[in-house]
Amino acid sequence: MTMRAIVASPDHPLRIETIDRAQAGPGRVLIEIAYAGVNRPDLIQRMGAYPPPAGAPETMGLECSGTITAIGEGVTDLKVGDQVCALLPGGGYADYAWADAGSCMRIPNGLSLLEAAALPETVLTVWANVFERAALKPGETFLVHGGASGIGTMAIQMAKAHGATIFATAGGPTKAALCTKLGADVVIDYKEQDFLELVRAKGGVDVILDMVGGPYVQKNLDCLKMDGRCVQIAFLQGPQVALNLMPVMLKRLTLTGSTLRSRPVEEKARLARAVLTHVWPWVESGAVRPVIDSVFDLADAEAAQAKMQANTHAGKIMLKVGG
Amino acid sequence: MTMRAIVASPDHPLRIETIDRAQAGPGRVLIEIAYAGVNRPDLIQRMGAYPPPAGAPETMGLECSGTITAIGEGVTDLKVGDQVCALLPGGGYADYAWADAGSCMRIPNGLSLLEAAALPETVLTVWANVFERAALKPGETFLVHGGASGIGTMAIQMAKAHGATIFATAGGPTKAALCTKLGADVVIDYKEQDFLELVRAKGGVDVILDMVGGPYVQKNLDCLKMDGRCVQIAFLQGPQVALNLMPVMLKRLTLTGSTLRSRPVEEKARLARAVLTHVWPWVESGAVRPVIDSVFDLADAEAAQAKMQANTHAGKIMLKVGG
Repeated sequence: MTMRAIVASPDHPLRIETIDRAQAGPGRVLIEIAYAGVNRPDLIQRMGAYPPPAGAPETMGLECSGTITAIGEGVTDLKVGDQVCALLPGGGYADYAWADAGSCMRIPNGLSLLEAAALPETVLTVWANVFERAALKPGETFLVHGGASGIGTMAIQMAKAHGATIFATAGGPTKAALCTKLGADVVIDYKEQDFLELVRAKGGVDVILDMVGGPYVQKNLDCLKMDGRCVQIAFLQGPQVALNLMPVMLKRLTLTGSTLRSRPVEEKARLARAVLTHVWPWVESGAVRPVIDSVFDLADAEAAQAKMQANTHAGKIMLKVGG
Repeated sequence: MTMRAIVASPDHPLRIETIDRAQAGPGRVLIEIAYAGVNRPDLIQRMGAYPPPAGAPETMGLECSGTITAIGEGVTDLKVGDQVCALLPGGGYADYAWADAGSCMRIPNGLSLLEAAALPETVLTVWANVFERAALKPGETFLVHGGASGIGTMAIQMAKAHGATIFATAGGPTKAALCTKLGADVVIDYKEQDFLELVRAKGGVDVILDMVGGPYVQKNLDCLKMDGRCVQIAFLQGPQVALNLMPVMLKRLTLTGSTLRSRPVEEKARLARAVLTHVWPWVESGAVRPVIDSVFDLADAEAAQAKMQANTHAGKIMLKVGG
């Protein structure tokens, strides 16, 4: 039993190889993959800087949609033939992947398998960080950096559906226009304008979702309102920063962050249940929809990642596997 | 109607002068002061670096005990003759000070006016930061820096009464011995040992209360466990820091902070009510007691502050006014 999978190596571009087929195990299911999402951690994993957690597949791919073809011991709420989308510990760039049963979510009504595969990483990340860690409340103001990214497009829509006022940064007029279309109230083209100045002029924000780090961190602290919260989900410009922390004390700020992949299986299951309860209704009403930038064939994973690296995409970059 | 008060000036040492007597106003009471606490912000205010908030007295002093001699309009739950201790917006280094009614707390059973005057700043600071912001839970591990300070001695006892395991840093064997006596499980003499190394060797901590800042901030982040919280209540070594924030994301840490003085009156009243409910029983059972380092006459405020500046005290430095 084999399958196709994308294999990374320092010596050659991503290429498709035939390897042993993934298997369901206790508490897990096997998914025959229709579509898989490309995520920035994949690029970092490929460079060797983000090793998979213990027990995870060596191959890349953190989310997929598809059909369950096998059920492991102890799985009671899923069955062979179910269509699901799932958060994966890895291995999504392949014909098959195993998923923890608790990380599988039903396909929202009205969504295609392509659209559903674009949801797990972004929805769970935004839920865990903006809604849980930062506890964004209706009526508050929310700033998301990289508003046109996969995470950004989802964060704008979820925060809007929740009743927040949205600020978003984006690079260039096309990405900025997308943020506006998705519901952002104030969009800042960071190539033209300093976000700190503009956000401050508008009274500051309550919550920030940041994946930039570096020089953004001080600016984030400086444009938060009293009791404001900033959540780091990546450090694209590095985690090493020179900071004046006085605003943290004087404005009672909270600087925090998290990663999704490192969380325990039960914690991911809890997040998935919360998302099914709170976010799926927004998706099914049309208030929140995944934004798909482009779809590449599995065999073209190299080109898909190159597009993300070039930062010319808006929304999600997807791989078509069997769908 | 006049009163004695300590007046600060860049030109001369602290000296006692006769000024207009403080008055109760709407929602406020006038307290004839028995004892007043000396706090580090007083030293900063004196240097001009911590101006009193709008509407606060110009003179120093953030807490006192004494007897109510006048009641302002709208105050219903206090009466002339009541003995109280109170958090003050300023003005405690004097014969009289006004206090917001909500910032007054009854004298705990069994405590002298001297002991009660040592409570408001430390108890409210520890409650607001360790119990509310950091949400310390029974069974968690808690590190307090400056364990022999006024705040530190109170933090050790309150966290212990709450069922936490306590780590404390202190400078020198006498202060370290005090921390142990108060219930600290692990005491680190920072003049002899690096706290980061020792705390890590013991598995890290869940919550840190820090007033040092500077180089301590990175070490704090580095010795927190998963989901750990660090609260800054001062920056004795400065708020300017070079940080690697990666642990904030990878360990889902929370870096936060607050000040007490800047909070709205209603917020201070809410904190005072919480403390009356949760901390006064610990004080009355003897589980938590203020540690008094020394008592100076009001006229000797200069010497009292010099002792704090020299950092040779352990526990609270107090002023005897009329008590």
